[in-house]
Amino acid sequence: MLFYDCQPAPSPRRVRIFIAEKGVDIPVQQIDLRSGEHLTEEFKAKNPDCTVPALELDDGTVLSETIAICSYLEDTYPEPPLIGHDAASRANVLMWNARIEQQGLAAVAESFRNHAKGFKGRAVTGPQGYDQIPELVPRGRARTEQFMAMLDQHLKGRAFIAGDRFSMADITALITIDMGAWIKLPIPESCAELRLKPTE
Amino acid sequence: MLFYDCQPAPSPRRVRIFIAEKGVDIPVQQIDLRSGEHLTEEFKAKNPDCTVPALELDDGTVLSETIAICSYLEDTYPEPPLIGHDAASRANVLMWNARIEQQGLAAVAESFRNHAKGFKGRAVTGPQGYDQIPELVPRGRARTEQFMAMLDQHLKGRAFIAGDRFSMADITALITIDMGAWIKLPIPESCAELRLKPTE
Repeated sequence: MLFYDCQPAPSPRRVRIFIAEKGVDIPVQQIDLRSGEHLTEEFKAKNPDCTVPALELDDGTVLSETIAICSYLEDTYPEPPLIGHDAASRANVLMWNARIEQQGLAAVAESFRNHAKGFKGRAVTGPQGYDQIPELVPRGRARTEQFMAMLDQHLKGRAFIAGDRFSMADITALITIDMGAWIKLPIPESCAELRLKPTE
Repeated sequence: MLFYDCQPAPSPRRVRIFIAEKGVDIPVQQIDLRSGEHLTEEFKAKNPDCTVPALELDDGTVLSETIAICSYLEDTYPEPPLIGHDAASRANVLMWNARIEQQGLAAVAESFRNHAKGFKGRAVTGPQGYDQIPELVPRGRARTEQFMAMLDQHLKGRAFIAGDRFSMADITALITIDMGAWIKLPIPESCAELRLKPTE
């Protein structure tokens, strides 16, 4: 296996944490998003979506999409389980992971990508150029604030987001909350539960 | 189990098709999105996200999010497999399902929700009110066109989207393509592969 990573980017960090929790050692190749290495023909031949994280399997198959990569790693290295251990716990982790992706991660990314100078003409992930839409900056921010309040409420009396152990849902939440700093949105004072949790 | 459905809506249709492919019989309760039944306190107590599909388990747990519901159904009724049968095929289905959700379904939904009169003040799924952003209408449409071209190219020489059998990825693609009609975007003439596939 070969893991295509980009150290400063939030999405591949999800997979990096997942691998670290599994305690396995997978060779890593850094892809420099800042210089546009993901948009080169060479990387596009690996992953037509031009995204990291990506995971190349030993037969040459390249997986993109965090959920697919984490599912493959979970099946290959079952311990410790990070996507549940039975039908109900798996569904619970996947539900929270999807909620956090849509209500949190997509919101903070939307606010960031539609504002940051470096993403001019690349407001949507992938090889195609889409213009920034300024109205998405405050909307993404408002949605992120709302997400933090929702998650804080959910965490009252809970040590983990989905079930009684650390899971992929906690990883997705962690990188979402940390990404808040990119849009100058630290955890609000009112979110006591989120503030209590260690962020790494 | 009790499946909260809404006959005319695309997302619960994904679960409806999934259940039909499994050949199982699960009691259904229709939630009338048009009259706002999903926003009532009664339904919010079931699913705080105020979304369908939702699946109530026999212990009272309510699952939201299609991926979580389908994972639970797949684990409970393994045959026929709709999310793969081993690590590699599962990852492939989940990768294509995520791609289709993000590049297709999110795009067509964005174009629709930011335009349709009925979604004024509700441009984002969920109980909170967000204003429509007119720029998202053409952008969502352009992204949907691009998604159709990508999927058409991928289907050349393939009977199914992910692997050698019908899967959740095909279901997600089907409802996305059909939803194109909601933004007056039929399958383009140039997409010969998509046009060949039966849509129901």
